Amino acid sequence: MDEIRIFSPATVANVSCGYDAMAFALGTLGDEMYFRRTSKKKVKITEITGASLPFEAKKNAAGVVALAMLADSHADFGVEMEIHKKYKPGSGLGSSAASSAGAAFAVNRLLGDVYSELELLRFAMLGEEAACGSQIADNVAAALYGGFVLIRSYDPLEVVSIPTPPKLYATVIHPQIEVSTEEARKVLPEQIPVQTAVAQWANVGGLISGLYTNDYELIGRSLVDHVAEPYRKVFIPHFEKLRKVARAAGALGCGISGSGPSVFAFSKGENIASEVAMAFDKLYSSTGIDYQLYVSGIGNAGVKEIDS
Amino acid sequence: MDEIRIFSPATVANVSCGYDAMAFALGTLGDEMYFRRTSKKKVKITEITGASLPFEAKKNAAGVVALAMLADSHADFGVEMEIHKKYKPGSGLGSSAASSAGAAFAVNRLLGDVYSELELLRFAMLGEEAACGSQIADNVAAALYGGFVLIRSYDPLEVVSIPTPPKLYATVIHPQIEVSTEEARKVLPEQIPVQTAVAQWANVGGLISGLYTNDYELIGRSLVDHVAEPYRKVFIPHFEKLRKVARAAGALGCGISGSGPSVFAFSKGENIASEVAMAFDKLYSSTGIDYQLYVSGIGNAGVKEIDS
Repeated sequence: MDEIRIFSPATVANVSCGYDAMAFALGTLGDEMYFRRTSKKKVKITEITGASLPFEAKKNAAGVVALAMLADSHADFGVEMEIHKKYKPGSGLGSSAASSAGAAFAVNRLLGDVYSELELLRFAMLGEEAACGSQIADNVAAALYGGFVLIRSYDPLEVVSIPTPPKLYATVIHPQIEVSTEEARKVLPEQIPVQTAVAQWANVGGLISGLYTNDYELIGRSLVDHVAEPYRKVFIPHFEKLRKVARAAGALGCGISGSGPSVFAFSKGENIASEVAMAFDKLYSSTGIDYQLYVSGIGNAGVKEIDS
Repeated sequence: MDEIRIFSPATVANVSCGYDAMAFALGTLGDEMYFRRTSKKKVKITEITGASLPFEAKKNAAGVVALAMLADSHADFGVEMEIHKKYKPGSGLGSSAASSAGAAFAVNRLLGDVYSELELLRFAMLGEEAACGSQIADNVAAALYGGFVLIRSYDPLEVVSIPTPPKLYATVIHPQIEVSTEEARKVLPEQIPVQTAVAQWANVGGLISGLYTNDYELIGRSLVDHVAEPYRKVFIPHFEKLRKVARAAGALGCGISGSGPSVFAFSKGENIASEVAMAFDKLYSSTGIDYQLYVSGIGNAGVKEIDS
């Protein structure tokens, strides 16, 4: 394969109760990227649209991933790439993960599919490290594997894919305000009461059970985050109101996407998800804050090749 | 129905990672109980074998449950019961839960099945409170619902049943030493690092996924308890050696049953579970500590009627 065009999905990490352990991919929101083999053994980023990101390969998440893979595989060729961001970085929707996972997937194709999914995850995590400072696996794993993922362990690295109920839809609002991942981490306590932790893993168990059994109501009831949300919701204007209108519109549950500021809601069926979007729209349209709204199924395919 | 004889299973709470939220029932180890309607509106315990427990109904877990149910339902009859303990109280195998759940199940039958499973759980929790001082749901829920259970929430009370892989067997060793639940709780820290909690719920997610998908190896890898085991294993002589010989014999994983002192191991297939039992036997036979050994499938039926 000499060239490939891909879609790499936006991802929602944490999924409320699954703080730092779970994530899912969106079906229709994500970046487009284009990769081609070149005779020069270099990684060159030729075009970036939709965001202001470094063109220098070793400073760009996708570039870092490509460089690492070409070096590791002793490739006798180089790669040129285009990155077309379709949603804004800093959204809490795994923008750097989409770039990193997309590069891992595409470069592997150019190499002739030499790496396993887990190896691709390790490469993608290098991109996350370049962009965010640490090798977090949740967003990149969701982008690479698709659907819902659980990072069961970091050492050794292990990802468990969890099935997606067919009628599950996500509504996402991205208030265009800045919340740095670092700041969002700093506000969290280092310790939590054991009782709080028990409540949290009981909900993780409920969420995963609901995903396996298509029990939409159980999924909704399990979307409770006792650990991060109480501290992070203050960064998100009108968070509690968003939750309230989401529920009133029929959503199963609602939470912060990653470290925010985006907020996601789950609904059973696309119609209700659209009504939740309208409710978000109505609430936010009077706030004076810019925002983006998305309605999407769950992206079970993850990163995928698309037509040129 | 005028009389009923039942089997009420021993149960293993926590299941390592699922501290205070998960439990499962054993298939072949448990108590037998016999209940009959009487014209006198009283609860009378006529026989107790296998353990020294109070005959006074309001001081006996099963008696407390029966009294509460007869009062709540305004029953025009009383109940006589026999309790035949087939394993020792203080084992960490839910002895009071077996009595409480057994009474809830049987008295409901005598009443004409007027209560839901969740209502029976609430009554059984009164028995747990009488025996242990607090309304803990995990053991009684496993005994009543059978198989694996997750206590998703206490307020409102919600139990999620998790399926059992068909080849999953448990080996249990009960070292005959005393570990009080209260003491076992006291040694635990009140707070844990968020990172520890994340590792724990990642394993809860792995365990539940493994149970849904019959992934025995994943079940084994997920049997890690960062929260209670590090503090409680010191009460259990040779705990680390038990784990070591269990693994060497082919067990998937190993942990403390409830607050101990019993230790359980999971195996794929009854043969390996028996080999684990032999390994436990070999290790403990030279320690001078009395012990009981059990090999059992998972008790998917929970409490059940048996032939008179």
